[in-house]
Amino acid sequence: MKFCSHCGELVVRKVPNGDNRERFVCESCDTVHYQNPRVITGCIAAFEDQVLLARRAINPRAGYWTLPAGFLENGETASAGAARETLEEAKAAVEIIDLYAVFSLPHISQMYCFYRATLPEPKFAAGEESTEVALFRESDVPWEELAFPVIRDTLQFYFEDRSRGRFEMRARDIVIDPAELRKRRL
Amino acid sequence: MKFCSHCGELVVRKVPNGDNRERFVCESCDTVHYQNPRVITGCIAAFEDQVLLARRAINPRAGYWTLPAGFLENGETASAGAARETLEEAKAAVEIIDLYAVFSLPHISQMYCFYRATLPEPKFAAGEESTEVALFRESDVPWEELAFPVIRDTLQFYFEDRSRGRFEMRARDIVIDPAELRKRRL
Repeated sequence: MKFCSHCGELVVRKVPNGDNRERFVCESCDTVHYQNPRVITGCIAAFEDQVLLARRAINPRAGYWTLPAGFLENGETASAGAARETLEEAKAAVEIIDLYAVFSLPHISQMYCFYRATLPEPKFAAGEESTEVALFRESDVPWEELAFPVIRDTLQFYFEDRSRGRFEMRARDIVIDPAELRKRRL
Repeated sequence: MKFCSHCGELVVRKVPNGDNRERFVCESCDTVHYQNPRVITGCIAAFEDQVLLARRAINPRAGYWTLPAGFLENGETASAGAARETLEEAKAAVEIIDLYAVFSLPHISQMYCFYRATLPEPKFAAGEESTEVALFRESDVPWEELAFPVIRDTLQFYFEDRSRGRFEMRARDIVIDPAELRKRRL
């Protein structure tokens, strides 16, 4: 951020009065521009004993498999966003069951919310952001080709809970060691 | 938003290529300015059989009681944010137990996350955004003076679960009828 989105003047980085963190502040019109984490919402959509995965057409992690998910939009419930993303990325119309996994990822300022859902029919296809969409049994999940650790964690929780016959909402903070983060960014 | 925060030129409202919603777009530097829901994070902090509430010093709903909560910051886990807000608003140092309630409020583009927490000692005081902080037994909660419906819902879930001896994570979409919303905004 370089310019004030309200008046167009240059912004500065400073701690506003009464605050305790640096923000982008416009000294011309006195607007404080807050920047906050974004919510990613998606589905674990099941058909019989299989779950729906999509192969990413876009970066990051193009070519790897993911659960359909994307940014929650303004004016949308998180469950509606999860269903919308599944329709957009996997062209699959799902019925939402319940919120299942919530991950906090401070190093990228994101929160992930995955909903359990059912696919009434095995109808799906690659959307614009996918090259391929398929149903996988637990034994067939491409564990080594999953796009992100949160996808692996969500699927592991899901299959564990399914095998014991009881789903329980899961919440995890994913905190990455700063040394590891620097290494990844090299 | 009137000006591009990247280059300072005027933005327009339009559907970018490959998108399906109107965004603020800068036609000068081709930046799309996405606007997304924000996350509010807070605590139900218990000391023995009492929960900690703060009376709001600021609008909206100044003078009404709330659970300590506020905007999740970039670079912060949702649980750390909940503890920070409780320290800022109620000057209480809590130990987080687990995520307890998640509410999606599309009419204000917010997601609320409340964590269960314990207060190791009954030490608290009004922070800058509160006029008063106190512990309440279930029978003493000022139900008619709570700031927001999500606060009432969270407390009701909490006391129900406590009385049956088992806490279960709760997720709800709070969808308000458009006619009701228009009435509220008059």
